[in-house]
Amino acid sequence: MQTICAISTPYGVGGIAVIRVSGDDAIAIVDRLFVGRVPLREAKANTVHFGRIQTDLYGSQVEVLDEVLCSVFRAPHSFTGEDTVEIACHGSIYIQQELVRWLIDAGCRAAEPGDFTRRAFLNGKMDLTQAESVADLIAAQSKAEKDLALSQLRGSVSNELASLRERLLHFTSLVELELDFADHEELEFADRVELTALADEIEKKLAALIASFRTGNAIRNGIPVAIVGAPNVGKSTLLNALLGEQRAIVSDIQGTTRDTIEDTLIIDGILFRLIDTAGLRETNDTIENMGIERSRKAIERAQIVVHVKEPNPDPSPKGRELIEIKETVIEVVNKCDLIKGVSPQGETNGSRPLLISAKNNDIEPLKQELVRIAKASMSTSVVMLSNARHYEAVVRAHSAIERVQEGLVAGLSGELLSLDLQDCLNALGEVTGQITNQEVLANIFSKFCIGK
Amino acid sequence: MQTICAISTPYGVGGIAVIRVSGDDAIAIVDRLFVGRVPLREAKANTVHFGRIQTDLYGSQVEVLDEVLCSVFRAPHSFTGEDTVEIACHGSIYIQQELVRWLIDAGCRAAEPGDFTRRAFLNGKMDLTQAESVADLIAAQSKAEKDLALSQLRGSVSNELASLRERLLHFTSLVELELDFADHEELEFADRVELTALADEIEKKLAALIASFRTGNAIRNGIPVAIVGAPNVGKSTLLNALLGEQRAIVSDIQGTTRDTIEDTLIIDGILFRLIDTAGLRETNDTIENMGIERSRKAIERAQIVVHVKEPNPDPSPKGRELIEIKETVIEVVNKCDLIKGVSPQGETNGSRPLLISAKNNDIEPLKQELVRIAKASMSTSVVMLSNARHYEAVVRAHSAIERVQEGLVAGLSGELLSLDLQDCLNALGEVTGQITNQEVLANIFSKFCIGK
Repeated sequence: MQTICAISTPYGVGGIAVIRVSGDDAIAIVDRLFVGRVPLREAKANTVHFGRIQTDLYGSQVEVLDEVLCSVFRAPHSFTGEDTVEIACHGSIYIQQELVRWLIDAGCRAAEPGDFTRRAFLNGKMDLTQAESVADLIAAQSKAEKDLALSQLRGSVSNELASLRERLLHFTSLVELELDFADHEELEFADRVELTALADEIEKKLAALIASFRTGNAIRNGIPVAIVGAPNVGKSTLLNALLGEQRAIVSDIQGTTRDTIEDTLIIDGILFRLIDTAGLRETNDTIENMGIERSRKAIERAQIVVHVKEPNPDPSPKGRELIEIKETVIEVVNKCDLIKGVSPQGETNGSRPLLISAKNNDIEPLKQELVRIAKASMSTSVVMLSNARHYEAVVRAHSAIERVQEGLVAGLSGELLSLDLQDCLNALGEVTGQITNQEVLANIFSKFCIGK
Repeated sequence: MQTICAISTPYGVGGIAVIRVSGDDAIAIVDRLFVGRVPLREAKANTVHFGRIQTDLYGSQVEVLDEVLCSVFRAPHSFTGEDTVEIACHGSIYIQQELVRWLIDAGCRAAEPGDFTRRAFLNGKMDLTQAESVADLIAAQSKAEKDLALSQLRGSVSNELASLRERLLHFTSLVELELDFADHEELEFADRVELTALADEIEKKLAALIASFRTGNAIRNGIPVAIVGAPNVGKSTLLNALLGEQRAIVSDIQGTTRDTIEDTLIIDGILFRLIDTAGLRETNDTIENMGIERSRKAIERAQIVVHVKEPNPDPSPKGRELIEIKETVIEVVNKCDLIKGVSPQGETNGSRPLLISAKNNDIEPLKQELVRIAKASMSTSVVMLSNARHYEAVVRAHSAIERVQEGLVAGLSGELLSLDLQDCLNALGEVTGQITNQEVLANIFSKFCIGK
């Protein structure tokens, strides 16, 4: 393929920058500009060479652009699967941009976003889920995000789906073979009992993947945590204490917070999306009622609800009612600094509320509990979906395999079965990129940065 | 020396980032975290290795941080002269920062600004002028700046000074040897005729270097170009046309520009610092007079003066008088679009003014003339000083060698000569770093970025 080049390191001035060149002529093109101890075409794969980048203007005055290190990789043993040279130059923006210009003059094309990873995919170095995880890895802001992207880069989703698809493909061909012998209705190449077992297994795994998306997505975008409770129990003070900054306006006046306020926070490598809500109470204030309506929605979206109470129990059951619909509620008693002889408690047995003081920044027990719940939901041994495109395709695959299951129970003909089997195969193939189209690829890689 | 590590690529998110590790234990420390086909300690110098960065927690769960490429360099064949590993990881800020943290936990110290280049200097890989040019190279914004920094990195200033200093050192030891035989006044180990010839040669070269500083400094900071002329001849319009943006306010009213306006512009790889000035005229307006005073100062600072006139010759000699003090004046007739049958002219024989139209953006002749004059002043074959520290030391060396010359003429004793010779040697040694102190080094390297 035509040789492409781009600055692969972040934009700006730094000690060094790396310009990546990949394609059939990568080594030859860089050799036109590079003068080292040996030409790069004679260099062994995976070796680094010091030298100068200079114009090859015979006769006229030679211009030296920079002293550089060139790393040489040879197809197929490179990221892209093509011959690749990585040029480490001095990190001046001028030099970086000039080097790209010189490379283009020497025969390269400027790489577009994701071009290098796209080639890795097209050259079979990785499947589509792995390619997509490269962008996720680069965008990773927390340990959980990084772990998830890295496990997908290392093929967790691909392996899970590819082997299921492989086995399903085998059965589907047998079923379709039966169609060629349609006159012999008694012929069944595909053992219906085995096929049923496989469909059941696939259905279970896809259902688990679908369920994992909630967590996977939460890892990418932050686990939504709603802070709810009656007015004036200190919800905004708690938000500020968790964030370590004065994010929400705090006052003694009931109904200070009207809009929901969101911000993200990383605790122990896990990204949380905190949502401070309006206090839940009966009110005639129109704006406040709109805020309360938003609180309800925030609770619906939340994966964890932190229910804040005051030390003196409030007999009103309103807040509680709302919250009981959620699985994961952390009951918290705030303002425990007001109770004599009581200090913040780190232990909870699930029923006893956590004692904290947001005002005094005594919130460690709550932080620990948030991490404990989050970690419980994201056991790393489980393969997780985190990409909406994958989720959508897996949902389609799941519904197709359910139709196959139903068809098997109903004893449907191979002809009808094969339609649903094909649907399932196609949906699975879309995830890994075994079945794809230019539009989908263009969309995926346009989200990459240039140089990757 | 203790092993140091830092992110060497620009700060931010990118396709990849490079973390540099240098020091006695660089390879051993990275090996604690790196799992590849072979341990790096068994890797040949200048080779690249794919693998994982992971925790070496025996027994507990292994955490993988990233998949990386490690380049291995072995002392003394590395930038720093020490064992060095460059780790290319995915360009997520999270991963970059975690990797540095892991390296520090594994035994590295976080590098301070310029630490790597400082080690290159301390290990004799480069002298001080070369080390300083690394920072200049990274900051380079134009071709001329890059060329200058690169020629200094490649030793132009060092070689010039080091060989002079070497020969002077030889004579100085002979002169000082005479002092040991003070009783024998007739003894002269150092041939005074040869010493005079050397002193003359050194004086000439140092004088040339001092003269080159004006240009060298201009290349680094931009060649100052003052745009002057009577009110309303279109100076600000010309500034805007050169910059390609509406930088200065333009109106038909005389005296619109009061303050001097500066901005930089790169033409043909050369950085110019354009200074738009107030129109030169007699006026009672206090603020305008202050502006005119500033114009005069701008003209003094300028290396090139662009004198703008209107097509109809102005009999007033005021502007002209001011300008005649400068060597390099470009006479320009603006608004040539107002003259019938006249179009912008690209040729000048020095006496004929350039015809331009700033309003219509017909300014090519002026641009070409600016470049021609700038290039004439910066012949690349000449060694140039661009660093104020070098300039200051060379001025001292020059004045010391002048005293030596005078002393030789006056037939001074070796004792007195040797004092001035030592002064000259010390000043030259300060430039190349053969003589230096911790404070100077700390000051130089504190201006570097971290990771270089």
